Amino acid sequence: MSKIAADPSHPRYQSLLMRHRLEEARKKGMLAGSALIAHGRGEAFDYLLGEQTISSALIATRQALAHLSSAKHPVISLNGNVVALAGEEVLQLAYHLKCPVEINIFYRTPERMEALFNHLNEIKQQMGLDVEILGAESNARIPGLEGPRANCCKQGIFESDVILVPLEDGDRCEALVAMGKTVLVIDLNPFSRTARMASVTIVDELTRVLTNMNEILSSGENLQLTTNFQNEQILQAAFDHIGTVLTP
Amino acid sequence: MSKIAADPSHPRYQSLLMRHRLEEARKKGMLAGSALIAHGRGEAFDYLLGEQTISSALIATRQALAHLSSAKHPVISLNGNVVALAGEEVLQLAYHLKCPVEINIFYRTPERMEALFNHLNEIKQQMGLDVEILGAESNARIPGLEGPRANCCKQGIFESDVILVPLEDGDRCEALVAMGKTVLVIDLNPFSRTARMASVTIVDELTRVLTNMNEILSSGENLQLTTNFQNEQILQAAFDHIGTVLTP
Repeated sequence: MSKIAADPSHPRYQSLLMRHRLEEARKKGMLAGSALIAHGRGEAFDYLLGEQTISSALIATRQALAHLSSAKHPVISLNGNVVALAGEEVLQLAYHLKCPVEINIFYRTPERMEALFNHLNEIKQQMGLDVEILGAESNARIPGLEGPRANCCKQGIFESDVILVPLEDGDRCEALVAMGKTVLVIDLNPFSRTARMASVTIVDELTRVLTNMNEILSSGENLQLTTNFQNEQILQAAFDHIGTVLTP
Repeated sequence: MSKIAADPSHPRYQSLLMRHRLEEARKKGMLAGSALIAHGRGEAFDYLLGEQTISSALIATRQALAHLSSAKHPVISLNGNVVALAGEEVLQLAYHLKCPVEINIFYRTPERMEALFNHLNEIKQQMGLDVEILGAESNARIPGLEGPRANCCKQGIFESDVILVPLEDGDRCEALVAMGKTVLVIDLNPFSRTARMASVTIVDELTRVLTNMNEILSSGENLQLTTNFQNEQILQAAFDHIGTVLTP
């Protein structure tokens, strides 16, 4: 890690820390080839948001938490970048919610799966968090997807009623919505198909969202579903915010 | 290369081709760790431009070409991503302009420099382009920069009056401007410090710009410097364009 990134008061600390985590994950074989490019796209959109949690994102975060807290079978789906960038934060969240996580990756190889499991298990042990990690073996398929991308766990994603899928791809988001699930996504790009397909879209950076979620859950705040929640309004607020950032 | 990327009629062909070139370059050791993240950031901004050359970018492209054509000592500075993404296009441009190129990278290691030289020399030979490739040994320093980043070639960057630096970093752009050079940059992010510091900023994707430049030069068009060229107007036009794209 560079000297800059070791100093939390540095204005680029958070961004450099995320790059460092990705670099370490890459060395461990946890990432697909497209992972770093995807992260760079996210960085650009975060820049346009002003690298902050905007108020509409916090509304969506609370709505997502209310869904997760009242779900019968909540689950958190994890890909390589989520494990790399926010392994600790996501296990803390699952622990708070008493729900399993499922490693479910697009480019599935035994080596990548093993590297991801090892990384999460290490964190689990270090932090003493009792969380079920699914995904090692798939025994169900998501209808509407082809090939290995459809594979999932029956007792995890397949039977879930509410699913948090940070950094999801559009196809899978659409397929999960078509299964009748409440799909909660974290996506810095408010224009993406994922952002437009989801039940609740949190337009914010992954670790900020998970930190916010953990803080809200720890505070004991009473979470209530907003019945007239409109995801289009959340997206519109993100567009509008970017518009104000872009106006010199 | 995936099947999708092998089909030029595929709507994502160009984008997938660029990723393929980066992947190949990574395998050859041509890229720094941050190269893919930087590319992803560019992808996001190109998405906001509509993945097209906007009219203000074409105006800036012509102004840049007019500067290069009328320069006494023009030079093109190349980093790893430029060599990886547009090695052919940039050597063609240097050949048209009868100017040298200089490999000048931020994270300089003998292995990376060798990989970049080998890649360019291979293209040079295949295409039969007689272009001088500088940068193997540095014998001058850019004032205002610290450490190895300041290193450059006396007969290249140091003595140039007009310099094209695609995908440049802000510090170096500022230092080159401070040397009194006319600095021409290609940057998809119109908000970057590089974009704001440069003499001429082309807010467009690298290979589109170089292809446009080569076509304009081949056409024999009479290139004239616009005396009242205002780079702020070029940037403003890019902001405005993104604003229209963002308005749903």
